[in-house]
Amino acid sequence: MEEIKVFCPATIANVSCGFDVLGLALDSVGDEMVVRKTEEKVIRITKIKGQDLPLETNKNVSGVAGLALLEKSGYNGGFEIEIDKRIKPGSGIGSSAASSAGAVWAMNELLGRPFSKLELVQFAMQGEKLASDVAHADNVAPAIYGGFTLVRSYEPLDIVAIPTPDELFATVIHPQIEIKTSDSRKILKTTLSLEKGIKQWGNLGGLIAGLFQSDYDLIGRSLQDHIVEPIRSILIPAFDDIKTNAMAAGALGGGISGSGPSIFALSKGEKIAQNVAKSMEATYKTIGVPFDIHISKVNVQGVKKLA
Amino acid sequence: MEEIKVFCPATIANVSCGFDVLGLALDSVGDEMVVRKTEEKVIRITKIKGQDLPLETNKNVSGVAGLALLEKSGYNGGFEIEIDKRIKPGSGIGSSAASSAGAVWAMNELLGRPFSKLELVQFAMQGEKLASDVAHADNVAPAIYGGFTLVRSYEPLDIVAIPTPDELFATVIHPQIEIKTSDSRKILKTTLSLEKGIKQWGNLGGLIAGLFQSDYDLIGRSLQDHIVEPIRSILIPAFDDIKTNAMAAGALGGGISGSGPSIFALSKGEKIAQNVAKSMEATYKTIGVPFDIHISKVNVQGVKKLA
Repeated sequence: MEEIKVFCPATIANVSCGFDVLGLALDSVGDEMVVRKTEEKVIRITKIKGQDLPLETNKNVSGVAGLALLEKSGYNGGFEIEIDKRIKPGSGIGSSAASSAGAVWAMNELLGRPFSKLELVQFAMQGEKLASDVAHADNVAPAIYGGFTLVRSYEPLDIVAIPTPDELFATVIHPQIEIKTSDSRKILKTTLSLEKGIKQWGNLGGLIAGLFQSDYDLIGRSLQDHIVEPIRSILIPAFDDIKTNAMAAGALGGGISGSGPSIFALSKGEKIAQNVAKSMEATYKTIGVPFDIHISKVNVQGVKKLA
Repeated sequence: MEEIKVFCPATIANVSCGFDVLGLALDSVGDEMVVRKTEEKVIRITKIKGQDLPLETNKNVSGVAGLALLEKSGYNGGFEIEIDKRIKPGSGIGSSAASSAGAVWAMNELLGRPFSKLELVQFAMQGEKLASDVAHADNVAPAIYGGFTLVRSYEPLDIVAIPTPDELFATVIHPQIEIKTSDSRKILKTTLSLEKGIKQWGNLGGLIAGLFQSDYDLIGRSLQDHIVEPIRSILIPAFDDIKTNAMAAGALGGGISGSGPSIFALSKGEKIAQNVAKSMEATYKTIGVPFDIHISKVNVQGVKKLA
């Protein structure tokens, strides 16, 4: 195989109670990317459609992630990358992660799969480091593994794939305002009370158990974040209204997607997810904030081959 | 049924990364209790064998827990309780929880099971409040549900039963020194760094996933506590040696049982659990601290009827 076209999913990191450890992949929103082998041992970004992003390999997340893979591969050639960028940068649904994960996943396919998923995550994390100064894995892991993933530990990197209940849908609203990941990290407190910590790991445990058991009520009860959401939500217009109305429309729970500004809700079944979308639209229309909205089944496959 | 004899299991709370939320029940160590119906609407502790504990209903954890149940029951009679106390108070393996949980479980049987397990936990928590000023549930929940339990939330109380892998054994060493639960809570810091919090909920998530998947390696990797163990272990003689030697003997992981002083290790299979016991014995024999040691399969049944 000389060339591959892939779908690179958007992802929701943190998922309320799983700050910096949990993430999930989406199905209906993502980038498309064509990667092809070249004789020269370089990574070249030849085309970016949809967004004004740097073509220089060292300044592009897919370039940096690709270089990390190329260096370890022993492959004497290189790769050309074309990106159809459909996820808006700064949206909080893993725009940089999709490009990083998609690039290394595609390269691994072209080379005959020499690398494990865990290794692909490690390469893609180099793209995340370029994007936000921190080599976090909570977006690139679900993009590569699909479904829900838990980053149990960073040293050593330990990714746990968590099963996804069949009827789980996400609704994501992206307010057209920009919050940089680096900025939204700065406002976080560096300490928390033991009391809030106990609530958080109780909820995280409940969410993991709920996902294993397809217990939608338990999933809903566990989607609570007493640590990060109260601080970061201040940066997001009408966050509380969006959440309250989503719950009234039947959502199991929700919160900030990644570092925001996108807000997500999880629902049992597509119909409820659509009703949640309507409630979110109505909320933002009344305050006049422009937005995109996505309804998606949780994507259990991760990055996938299109052609 | 007018009378019932029950086994009331010892329990390990916290289980490393699950401070205040996780617990598990043991099989080979526990109290025995006889509870019988009386015509008078009182709870009477008629006999306590094995330990010098108060017989007055209001000062005895099984009395207080029983009163909480009796008050809600609408039953016009009362109960007599005889306790064969085989778990040493202050050992850190849920001595008070066994008496509280055993009493209310037995009463519920005698009354024809009017109460749910969750309600029994709530009654038993009143005994815990008497014992340590805090109505915690992380010992009484596994005593009543069996296996591993997660206290997802206290308000409202939400207990999640977590499956137990078949070959999971615990080894517990109880150094014959006394640490009061209330004292061992006082030395804890009331805040923690966000960084340690992230590690903790990553590990808790990993442990829950490992239990669901019977992934013993993942269980082992997740049995880490960066928050409480470094502080409380100072109170326990040779804690680090015990743990290091247990790991060398093949344990998956371990830590402080409840608020100590008991130390637990989990192992895959009885043979390894026995080897771990030998390593613990050898460690304490060299320093001359007297101890009890228990090897037990995880008890998936909880309190059970003996006669």
